[in-house]
Amino acid sequence: MDLVERFGNEIEEINEALKDALMEKEPRELYDAARHLPLAGGKRLRPLLVLLASRAVGGSGYDALPFGLAIEIIHNFTLVHDDIMDRSTLRRGVETVHVKFGEPTAIIAGDVLFAKAFEVMHKLKVDDSIFRRLNGLLVKTVKEICEGQQLDMEFEKRTDVKEKDYLTMIEKKTAALFSCSTEGGGIIGGGSERSIRALANYGRYLGLAFQIRDDYLDLCGKEEEIGKRIGNDIRDGKKTIIIAHAVENLDDEGKRMLQSVLGNKNASDDDISRLVGLLKEAGSIDYARERALFYSELAAKELDKVEGKMEVLDDLKEIANYAATREK
Amino acid sequence: MDLVERFGNEIEEINEALKDALMEKEPRELYDAARHLPLAGGKRLRPLLVLLASRAVGGSGYDALPFGLAIEIIHNFTLVHDDIMDRSTLRRGVETVHVKFGEPTAIIAGDVLFAKAFEVMHKLKVDDSIFRRLNGLLVKTVKEICEGQQLDMEFEKRTDVKEKDYLTMIEKKTAALFSCSTEGGGIIGGGSERSIRALANYGRYLGLAFQIRDDYLDLCGKEEEIGKRIGNDIRDGKKTIIIAHAVENLDDEGKRMLQSVLGNKNASDDDISRLVGLLKEAGSIDYARERALFYSELAAKELDKVEGKMEVLDDLKEIANYAATREK
Repeated sequence: MDLVERFGNEIEEINEALKDALMEKEPRELYDAARHLPLAGGKRLRPLLVLLASRAVGGSGYDALPFGLAIEIIHNFTLVHDDIMDRSTLRRGVETVHVKFGEPTAIIAGDVLFAKAFEVMHKLKVDDSIFRRLNGLLVKTVKEICEGQQLDMEFEKRTDVKEKDYLTMIEKKTAALFSCSTEGGGIIGGGSERSIRALANYGRYLGLAFQIRDDYLDLCGKEEEIGKRIGNDIRDGKKTIIIAHAVENLDDEGKRMLQSVLGNKNASDDDISRLVGLLKEAGSIDYARERALFYSELAAKELDKVEGKMEVLDDLKEIANYAATREK
Repeated sequence: MDLVERFGNEIEEINEALKDALMEKEPRELYDAARHLPLAGGKRLRPLLVLLASRAVGGSGYDALPFGLAIEIIHNFTLVHDDIMDRSTLRRGVETVHVKFGEPTAIIAGDVLFAKAFEVMHKLKVDDSIFRRLNGLLVKTVKEICEGQQLDMEFEKRTDVKEKDYLTMIEKKTAALFSCSTEGGGIIGGGSERSIRALANYGRYLGLAFQIRDDYLDLCGKEEEIGKRIGNDIRDGKKTIIIAHAVENLDDEGKRMLQSVLGNKNASDDDISRLVGLLKEAGSIDYARERALFYSELAAKELDKVEGKMEVLDDLKEIANYAATREK
């Protein structure tokens, strides 16, 4: 499925609203820095999920737009700060914020996006009690994302990260915000508590699938599609599911080779492609591909518990599949 | 006035509640980093103002405590990030967070404090409509703080910063959060709109006085009292009211000497004390001291418009004077 082909109208609406929301002027440098990444593109998958989740349980979808924007802005805030910590230079095919605007401004740009996300929520036309519930949900989620990012960094220094640890980390770092999107959409759409719970679970499984596919694409994607250099995660020493699997399954020579490339900032493209060969042989790449599909199927199953509109639930099922099979 | 002598009970209550609010465990490193600065001390002036403002208009004070904690945590989050940007190594007599825990963890520690502040607000036992109002107020304030910090950094590179520019900057960077404290306290205490407005103005003037006194203490305070090295602002090239005044009033030789020290990270303590002599002669130091008093008097006048309890309003008046005369 091509997201843009399928949900072009929704994505356009999201893009327009996002541009409007970020149109602040002064201080110019700060807001230029804050706009840089969010307006450089992005799939808008999270706000799209907010709209669809809301529609699935009978909402209009667009009522939920401010929550979708808040989520997308939070997502971008975390990327701006993560890129500083990871010293990344390229994202969505453009320079990262700290490379373009300097690190101090990038730190504040992230902070102001964080604030902006919570500001945009005030555009929600919902009861104050619903507002409070959504606010609590988003706050809890941001804390989880911070915890996940911290674990991700700590794992870079460890060699004993197991798949279970990895799953805990991505559940916080990635899946929590997906879950927040679909749970929030369900709340705004007026779904039953049972439906909201199922939508939250759907989002969480979807997020796991999405992140595992992301790890896969870091090694097996195409640079021009993913907008980042292939093998970034390996050079950063990230402990992805592929690495966790490989550590359990490689022979001693393979492990030595893995350790020589993992976390080596200067690893060449050749080093990376030799490593990919090794990881393919060990079955680690296939394993990641399969686990992404596994979680996307769990996500789809949750939708059976949602009391809602079949055609929208079918869209959400397709998105679950997309998360695990996408090429970018 | 000694704040601790006068408001010891309130400050103790705030400290206990703050410790409780920050007692999270995992990931250990992240939450240790997040607790480091807020639990290293601090005057707790902002949460104290929340309590007193609430009491002034008839509230119990303690009902407003979660809002006070949120403000104090926001204040600490901005300090953690500011210290990274300013490369400060010491605050409240202890190592700054990025020095102790490394910069990546310090960035996330700031982020998680930001989230934590908004989480703590959910402990407020107020109507959902009041919750929403307070949330909007705090969000708007955080945006102002970010804008102020950006201006502060931009001013470091400029030599033409006028007093007016300086006031715009500190109004955002410092006074906005003071204003948010007293406005929020007034809202929670159930004050009339007129009283809330006057309390907000009081906080804003108080914040200006507080910041101008801060700039004064950076040059004329005692290191052991303020917990920072004397002349930090000068070495950072900060454009304080003292510098704005001096640029207008020094002769050419004086200006040359000022420019040779301002922004010079390696300026010795002797350089700083020679500069202080020069600034005293030019009347710039006295000017700062007087402007702090001027704004503290404007603050006190606002309290005459508050329909509230005289004895609490008197406390607030004393705090206005304290802000402009404190030695630490």
